[in-house]
Amino acid sequence: MSTIDSSPPPAAGQRGPLEHDVRDQIVTAAEAHFSRFGYGKTTVADLAKAIGFSKAYIYKFFDSKQAIGQAICVQCLDKVLAAGEAGIADGRTASEKLRRFFNGIVATSAELFFQDKLLYDIAAHSAEERWPSALAYLERSEALLKEIILLGRETGEFERKTPIDEVCEAILLVMQSFMNPLMLRHNLDDLPDAPTKAINLVLRSLAP
Amino acid sequence: MSTIDSSPPPAAGQRGPLEHDVRDQIVTAAEAHFSRFGYGKTTVADLAKAIGFSKAYIYKFFDSKQAIGQAICVQCLDKVLAAGEAGIADGRTASEKLRRFFNGIVATSAELFFQDKLLYDIAAHSAEERWPSALAYLERSEALLKEIILLGRETGEFERKTPIDEVCEAILLVMQSFMNPLMLRHNLDDLPDAPTKAINLVLRSLAP
Repeated sequence: MSTIDSSPPPAAGQRGPLEHDVRDQIVTAAEAHFSRFGYGKTTVADLAKAIGFSKAYIYKFFDSKQAIGQAICVQCLDKVLAAGEAGIADGRTASEKLRRFFNGIVATSAELFFQDKLLYDIAAHSAEERWPSALAYLERSEALLKEIILLGRETGEFERKTPIDEVCEAILLVMQSFMNPLMLRHNLDDLPDAPTKAINLVLRSLAP
Repeated sequence: MSTIDSSPPPAAGQRGPLEHDVRDQIVTAAEAHFSRFGYGKTTVADLAKAIGFSKAYIYKFFDSKQAIGQAICVQCLDKVLAAGEAGIADGRTASEKLRRFFNGIVATSAELFFQDKLLYDIAAHSAEERWPSALAYLERSEALLKEIILLGRETGEFERKTPIDEVCEAILLVMQSFMNPLMLRHNLDDLPDAPTKAINLVLRSLAP
């Protein structure tokens, strides 16, 4: 047996968690900085100066300002999806799951993205520039929606004639007015009535 | 009989048409000026200077810059509605009328508001600030939509259980992603497929 081991020495074992801590520290500081000066107007140099790190040190953890923005975005979108998933768990029937899924998503999006100008700013960049974090969120939403529709088809609550992908795509198109922060922005005055009316229409479209 | 007549003298009879001509001249010049410099950034003083009129003379015809913007907006929205109405006339069944109504509106909106940055700029102000021209357009759209739904209920194409106003409101909510220039802007890459999918969903929701 060789004493030279390919596994990292104990000290280096700290690297992962330590890196994780610094990443979190940068994200938290960036969040505070963006919220004062806006995401669009801040450069990595501004950020480094504000945090007290060197620009080079920040680049060790994040490739770009967008990568930091994405980390903030992922945190938010995870909360939005968690609210949608909680809605699915709470609903007894497929119809109720669908309704609560969207209610959870819309309410949490409105709360996160519009109570805090900062987060809207980042979410708008994310949606406009189709960041991977935004695309992953859409994919996950579509997957959850598909599960609900399939369940409703199984239980006989929903029609089965229309191809499932067409149904899911169309529902997401309808709900994007209230899910996409760039569009939700124009609908804030009409919450929660407008999305409820839209979901009612969607449920009528699913009737067998 | 008195020779003093309260009706305007023949020369003044020209006032209406003459005023109309000057108004048109201001609107045309404003359109050209806005298209170069943007609606938001232009003041009535800039406009007066560019057209070669005094500011006071422009104010004889329009109360404000917004009133000029509205005149341009009304022209555009009339074209959009005309395309929708042509769609209604072309469709044989209520379903076809509904489909062609929205296709006409969406295609003409995309053409008018996005081939020309100027018109988008004004349309965005109009939608964001809820100008009377935008509200009148929405009311007219809703009235046309209601006629189609009532027809479809009469012919037995559409369900009759849901209150008609709820149906119309919900359909307009769904279609706003493609009708409201502020939202259509984010959907241009997905024309004409996305609105077609949305209309298909709407038609499924109307099934008896």
